[in-house]
Amino acid sequence: MGPAATLDFLVRLHAATPAQGDADHLRVITDSDPRVPGRNAALSGDGPSPGPPLAAMARGLVTAGAELLAMPCNAAHGWANEIVAATPVPFVSMIDAAVAAVLASGARTVGVLAADATLRSGLYRNALTAHGIAVIDVASADFMPVLARIKGGDTGPAVRAAMAALAAGLVAQGADAVLAACTEVPLVLSPADVAVPLIDATGALVDAVLAAALA
Amino acid sequence: MGPAATLDFLVRLHAATPAQGDADHLRVITDSDPRVPGRNAALSGDGPSPGPPLAAMARGLVTAGAELLAMPCNAAHGWANEIVAATPVPFVSMIDAAVAAVLASGARTVGVLAADATLRSGLYRNALTAHGIAVIDVASADFMPVLARIKGGDTGPAVRAAMAALAAGLVAQGADAVLAACTEVPLVLSPADVAVPLIDATGALVDAVLAAALA
Repeated sequence: MGPAATLDFLVRLHAATPAQGDADHLRVITDSDPRVPGRNAALSGDGPSPGPPLAAMARGLVTAGAELLAMPCNAAHGWANEIVAATPVPFVSMIDAAVAAVLASGARTVGVLAADATLRSGLYRNALTAHGIAVIDVASADFMPVLARIKGGDTGPAVRAAMAALAAGLVAQGADAVLAACTEVPLVLSPADVAVPLIDATGALVDAVLAAALA
Repeated sequence: MGPAATLDFLVRLHAATPAQGDADHLRVITDSDPRVPGRNAALSGDGPSPGPPLAAMARGLVTAGAELLAMPCNAAHGWANEIVAATPVPFVSMIDAAVAAVLASGARTVGVLAADATLRSGLYRNALTAHGIAVIDVASADFMPVLARIKGGDTGPAVRAAMAALAAGLVAQGADAVLAACTEVPLVLSPADVAVPLIDATGALVDAVLAAALA
């Protein structure tokens, strides 16, 4: 839903595609709509549900030719069931892809950098604890102001330092890996900025989409 | 049609949009299909026309919600009439936008860096000469091998130097401006690489789309 995050996903999908020329790339049909109702407000009961608009977008993409659906927004996966129900084509879940990447990493305690709606929905906590992995959530009061600055177009040094400090705080609490569970996080945080492995939901979705599309 | 060039357009459209947050950005629906029949082959009679697939893509985008159409591929504008005829929504022409940028620049002799199909269709030559502007085309035998390297994913120093040399050749022939009339050109050529003003069709299309969408 964040347009910069959507572009980050598209650029990384393109870069990760094995290709000798244009014709080796995937056909990618994208609906980047920044006016999908806010996921955080909806979960707080302060706004309309994004479910019906997301289902309509999924139907539009399939009508335009999509044979596989993916959504580079973690929080919106709280309404994934409405997308899955809207069309007959497969939906590649970012949550499932990122959880698989955490499991593959061998981490036992994961710090989660995510928006309020993602944390409150339990999307990652429920899946990870079911696998015996301990979860440390970032404090929303700390994370949401930094997210707002990124969404305002600020990806400068101060915002990068603020996000790195949030990651360091999770490590100080015992995390042996950090999960970037919000697609705006990798816009300002790189593996080199974190003392433990940084697992990136956007990158996990890129890998899962390529695996599914090129299978 | 080139997926890297399409991403370049999308990233620049996003960056040029005046926005304080996500909700100020445009909804952008994109169909990036690298298997649209080759424009150069079609014009040589060596392949099928891209017109019908482009018209079908336009209809799909409008069905998915598009209210304005644009196509960040110069050569494909040879089939723009089929896109215009396919849907009732406005089509923002990259050719018209770039020609307007040339006129605004005050250039009298323009060197054109473009693919073979764009040159042979006369898309730019006819429009510019009608305004009394002299046109110097790059030699296709020189340009197409460099384009093939970019489409193969190579945007490294050797390719950048090769494109800069092609621009310098046009300047040596008398061009007082160079028109990047192929969306792969700005992937490897910046204004600082050219001794005269570099007019960029991709940038001109970004400006024209924003002007139309935010009007």
